[in-house]
Amino acid sequence: MNAEIIAVGSELLTPDRLDTNSLFLTGRLNMLGIRVSRKAIVGDQPGDIRDAFSEALHRAEIVISTGGLGPTLDDQTREAVSGLLGLALKLDQETLQHIRERFERMSRAMPEINVRQAMVPEGAEILPNPRGTAPGLWLETRGRFIILLPGPPNEMEGIFEQEVVRRLARHSPGTRLVKREIRVTGMGESHLEELIAPIYTSYPNVETTILAGQGEIQIHPRMWSADAEAARQTLDELTGKIEVALGEHIFSTDGESFEKVVAAALVANHATIATAESCTGGLVAERLTRVPGSSAYFISGVVCYSNEAKTALAGVPGEVIAAHGAVSSEVAIRLAEGIRRRSGATLGIGITGIAGPDGGAPEKPVGTVHIALAAENKTRESRFVFPGDRERVCWQASQVALDWVRRHFPPGLRGAN
Amino acid sequence: MNAEIIAVGSELLTPDRLDTNSLFLTGRLNMLGIRVSRKAIVGDQPGDIRDAFSEALHRAEIVISTGGLGPTLDDQTREAVSGLLGLALKLDQETLQHIRERFERMSRAMPEINVRQAMVPEGAEILPNPRGTAPGLWLETRGRFIILLPGPPNEMEGIFEQEVVRRLARHSPGTRLVKREIRVTGMGESHLEELIAPIYTSYPNVETTILAGQGEIQIHPRMWSADAEAARQTLDELTGKIEVALGEHIFSTDGESFEKVVAAALVANHATIATAESCTGGLVAERLTRVPGSSAYFISGVVCYSNEAKTALAGVPGEVIAAHGAVSSEVAIRLAEGIRRRSGATLGIGITGIAGPDGGAPEKPVGTVHIALAAENKTRESRFVFPGDRERVCWQASQVALDWVRRHFPPGLRGAN
Repeated sequence: MNAEIIAVGSELLTPDRLDTNSLFLTGRLNMLGIRVSRKAIVGDQPGDIRDAFSEALHRAEIVISTGGLGPTLDDQTREAVSGLLGLALKLDQETLQHIRERFERMSRAMPEINVRQAMVPEGAEILPNPRGTAPGLWLETRGRFIILLPGPPNEMEGIFEQEVVRRLARHSPGTRLVKREIRVTGMGESHLEELIAPIYTSYPNVETTILAGQGEIQIHPRMWSADAEAARQTLDELTGKIEVALGEHIFSTDGESFEKVVAAALVANHATIATAESCTGGLVAERLTRVPGSSAYFISGVVCYSNEAKTALAGVPGEVIAAHGAVSSEVAIRLAEGIRRRSGATLGIGITGIAGPDGGAPEKPVGTVHIALAAENKTRESRFVFPGDRERVCWQASQVALDWVRRHFPPGLRGAN
Repeated sequence: MNAEIIAVGSELLTPDRLDTNSLFLTGRLNMLGIRVSRKAIVGDQPGDIRDAFSEALHRAEIVISTGGLGPTLDDQTREAVSGLLGLALKLDQETLQHIRERFERMSRAMPEINVRQAMVPEGAEILPNPRGTAPGLWLETRGRFIILLPGPPNEMEGIFEQEVVRRLARHSPGTRLVKREIRVTGMGESHLEELIAPIYTSYPNVETTILAGQGEIQIHPRMWSADAEAARQTLDELTGKIEVALGEHIFSTDGESFEKVVAAALVANHATIATAESCTGGLVAERLTRVPGSSAYFISGVVCYSNEAKTALAGVPGEVIAAHGAVSSEVAIRLAEGIRRRSGATLGIGITGIAGPDGGAPEKPVGTVHIALAAENKTRESRFVFPGDRERVCWQASQVALDWVRRHFPPGLRGAN
């Protein structure tokens, strides 16, 4: 069963806005066994909207639109679709009452223009909108389903979940989508591809998408099947082989974020942490404290840009900075050990480097970062030269530091994963 | 002059990926006076690609596609378009040579399958791709222009800038797009709308888009005109009225980021800054140090979650914490004043609060944040209750703190703006 999605709105044809509603709709439709075969984005002109529906209805069993149901005259989806199907628009008193009440609850009179949102094509089912004034509309014509939804994402999602899912479920095929999500850090996309392409290409019924993001790569194997249990087994088998190939580069197989996995590892090991950052400017502390409950493991952090601050806040001796330079293995180690000692934390992170764009030198180019992790009886330290701009350099440095924390603990004690 | 954009690729019909290439293309086309009238997203099936081109060519003078020019068999844009237009595909020796050389430079032999990328429809102009193997293709048919570009954004953008802009400029109309970008912080979208709707609706020839983002709102007035100078004057007039209406809520009228504006204000006033953060976990320090050259004004930052850390790192007396609680006006003030004194900075920021989801109480609900800014002879402090989840609470708190820094300086001395 195929669906097409039409996003209506002239603002979606500017350089500023993307139709993101279709991602939500595609995810939900896929779970119902329905594929999205095409998407169109059209402006507010009634003729354009009409053409888009006309073409889509020639191809797909289900046509879903978002947008163009507002009260103002540039909202024309209702009118265009009624015109295309030859259906009269009639005022629905119940819907009008609902809209009036919404305004009353906000102590405002309903503007006359909102009456338009209570106009309903003959024979349409009304899909109530608990979060706004424009109801969704459900139409059936010659074995095709047409679903009109408002554009604001929270309204669109609310109506879809409450009204559309169960209606589509009645008609949708036995085929279902089963999927997995594997998250990886600490390796490049081409290296990962090299290791796992032989695995996933040997499963021709599984569609595998690889998404490279900031500091991590996601592997999404998906399988359409009438036999969900068999599909699950196939995906488990595939996932198992990928786990063997990528080993501890995998930090999550259940969609958990990297920060949460690191936090879970700290909590599972009753460990605490403190940070002393120079070039990353507090990014490591901020990522460690993004997770609810972070006060259980995060003790303190310092951001010490100047040499004086490195001495004052993390106890790095001025002689060490003078002898080796602020960007050096020795200073990274002293930052990590100093902040660990002063805070009393189990682990201390020290980072010093050149994030750029200025400040590089031939022997210490922009992107040079020293990272140190101090534990009770050993301190680990490495020098990196990260590519990219200031933001990318900082992100990669924070990613390495946090990944060292995760891998500091034995594999069985890393919380999630 | 109208253009339609077709994005080709089955991965763009999954819940994971959006066609973002069209935003770049729309921005560039608009600057050439060309409007985008429709966008379509189709999968890799040759029939679907062919249909999409066929429909678009009935409506628009320019049809641009991205994707489907790769070497593998699921890349079918070349074949589908040649088939639609009845053009034979011929091997182009020069393109083949270029592809071979690219592989040689990477010390690899060209896989036989890459020969497909050197197949060119009869009569097409080849648009060389300096960043990849697939060239772009330019076709003219019955007064319409067809432009096929590869999908990877950097290759697509490179070919568009080097080859497509000048070709389109020859044909594009005298009409041009002129635009402004106004950035605002410290007010809600509906309040802003109330203040400026009477202004921008009185300019019917200006299309004004309002984009609400994290902590800021952007106002984009755009005007199509054959007389660019007159359009510029109109937009200057409109922008001037909006500036009067929104006053110092406006932080930038030239697209500058909030962090850069705050940095410029500090630099223009030869001021330095230090931060003592609890709930924001280093976010304020991280945002202050995102800007290149931040070592000129950023002295140091501390992240002190525990009471002990507040005392050790920012000198907040234990009695003050005991008497008022860690989340209190008094502690925020002591954090700001303490870090200012210890670091020797011109300004000190102190933040303490409950980011959630846990830790709230009836008199101090989740979202409660105390923010203080200490200067030489006065300290400003306020209590906020921010809505939203942990991430939004922290972001809003950091936004207020940085906005206080910006507004600390006289309007004429705020760097950018």
